Amino acid sequence: MAMAVTLAHFFPPSSSSSSSRLCFLPSLRPNPLRKPAPLCCFSPASPQMDRQQGGGEGGTGERKRFVDFPYLSAPYKDMMAALVSTVESRLGSYLLPCTLPPDVQYFHNQSNTARACLHIRSGIESSPIDFILGSWLHCELPSGALNIMSLSAYLAPSTDAPNFLMEVVQSSPTSLVLILDLPPRKDLVLHSDYLQSFYEEPQLDRHQQLLEQIPEVQPYYSSSLFLRSVVSPTAMVVRAATEAGRVERMEEIVRDHVSPVAKQVLAFWLDQCAFGEREVGENERADLAKRDLVIKKKYIEIDMATNLPRLFGQEVADRVLGVIQEVFES
Amino acid sequence: MAMAVTLAHFFPPSSSSSSSRLCFLPSLRPNPLRKPAPLCCFSPASPQMDRQQGGGEGGTGERKRFVDFPYLSAPYKDMMAALVSTVESRLGSYLLPCTLPPDVQYFHNQSNTARACLHIRSGIESSPIDFILGSWLHCELPSGALNIMSLSAYLAPSTDAPNFLMEVVQSSPTSLVLILDLPPRKDLVLHSDYLQSFYEEPQLDRHQQLLEQIPEVQPYYSSSLFLRSVVSPTAMVVRAATEAGRVERMEEIVRDHVSPVAKQVLAFWLDQCAFGEREVGENERADLAKRDLVIKKKYIEIDMATNLPRLFGQEVADRVLGVIQEVFES
Repeated sequence: MAMAVTLAHFFPPSSSSSSSRLCFLPSLRPNPLRKPAPLCCFSPASPQMDRQQGGGEGGTGERKRFVDFPYLSAPYKDMMAALVSTVESRLGSYLLPCTLPPDVQYFHNQSNTARACLHIRSGIESSPIDFILGSWLHCELPSGALNIMSLSAYLAPSTDAPNFLMEVVQSSPTSLVLILDLPPRKDLVLHSDYLQSFYEEPQLDRHQQLLEQIPEVQPYYSSSLFLRSVVSPTAMVVRAATEAGRVERMEEIVRDHVSPVAKQVLAFWLDQCAFGEREVGENERADLAKRDLVIKKKYIEIDMATNLPRLFGQEVADRVLGVIQEVFES
Repeated sequence: MAMAVTLAHFFPPSSSSSSSRLCFLPSLRPNPLRKPAPLCCFSPASPQMDRQQGGGEGGTGERKRFVDFPYLSAPYKDMMAALVSTVESRLGSYLLPCTLPPDVQYFHNQSNTARACLHIRSGIESSPIDFILGSWLHCELPSGALNIMSLSAYLAPSTDAPNFLMEVVQSSPTSLVLILDLPPRKDLVLHSDYLQSFYEEPQLDRHQQLLEQIPEVQPYYSSSLFLRSVVSPTAMVVRAATEAGRVERMEEIVRDHVSPVAKQVLAFWLDQCAFGEREVGENERADLAKRDLVIKKKYIEIDMATNLPRLFGQEVADRVLGVIQEVFES
């Protein structure tokens, strides 16, 4: 559940330096996203949304709730819904339905101030897709609402093409963190043909350059060195912040810059990676599967195992983590 | 010759997009280092320095010329001389003398407007050192003097510890680019214990954070995706620019910030990498040697083979490249 990748920086580390080292932390430059956010004083949120949208039952209610992105303003919602729709329609025949239990597709904490949707669809046996994963999280904090949206797609070891990873963290209406990348599935130093095919020739760094030109956009440094190692050299890992009250400017940035770039990167990934037909031999498949598994396990270890209990309580966290682990390791 | 890593961005690519892709390019943000610098109109430089410092003969003349860094102002010179002195005194018993031909230890172009010193000392057979390489380049351009200083140290495949890489590009008295890193010698995704030992536990990213706090310092993006892939997640790859005429502020940044950080990183590298006593087995040595060789070959291919001919003419470039290739591939 890629949402968890950046959760940690909204919460003070619970204990030792080892957890703070593993979590995303902002750079030492003033970071508008860095707010102390103690979890002990949630404000109550509106419970009627749960009832309207199908409570905890399974089936289409959860899917609708996921693709509705109910807590987002139009530019964010439009972007995420368009990306999910594109992935599902292009990969449609490759994907099995989401079979997560209803209480993992949607879950919340006891006081209903933290809610999340999780949507995972595995690829059919003969497809190049391992699974796609979408999620959103909405959390009422004393400082305001925190929304985290993610969409990622993992390919099977039958191909060595890069995965797709997108995560958007909206910690206030005037600030966001964006992670958008095609994480490589091989050591790029040893495999320069791979670097050339997927990153150099398609000039993926032009998207980085476009975003860097926006005055409100700055690089974002994760304190997790593992996460920095996983992303490609063309990864967009940025934060954007507009002046207090300039919500419309942030929405303009999302609508006119972030959304078009995300759609282009996804289109490239679909055409060249998911449908790229790069078959690999049996020996290499084992290496790919090993490396893929390291990454998936680390995502769980680094952030979800730390943050889900804080946000949703241990019982909910155990339930969700158990199911994610099954999908990741199957 | 690590100097060449960043040479390209001072010169327009000579031909196709493939060369521009391979070279360092600034980000699209206004970059004070980006100056058109045609090589056809060098201003003459002072030839008496050559005579004073021993012309093209071999022996101690070249070594003195190298460690003197004759074209640098005090803060740069002090920093580079201290780093070279530390490396040579700490690794002394491991190192053979520099055996480069005198006309490779020091070379210049026909009009004497581009000059360079190269100093390579290989490690003795039983040492963990492959070789150390120091260099400086001074080039009179119509826009002013360009100075590039480098110091790097490559370890032998008997250890898997990271290498040391430092490069400073001074394109004017008020601007510099710094690359300072311990490039890993393994895929950090697959080897998270390695990431932990050399980067996470020593908190190497604290140096990045220190530099980021300086208002004049910005991230620097290499257009070479290979070079971005080679460095560690704690690499310092930054540019600094002070206002026009504020030379003393730039010198203050070098003296008070860059120099202390470089000394600390080098001290860590010496203690934990060069003297870290991490022995590796025969099988792994072959993998390390293979990966090391890819990196060394790429350094030559990416930049030196393109830039040395432009700066020094084909004859000088061939001579120097031939010798470097021998050292890198031996």
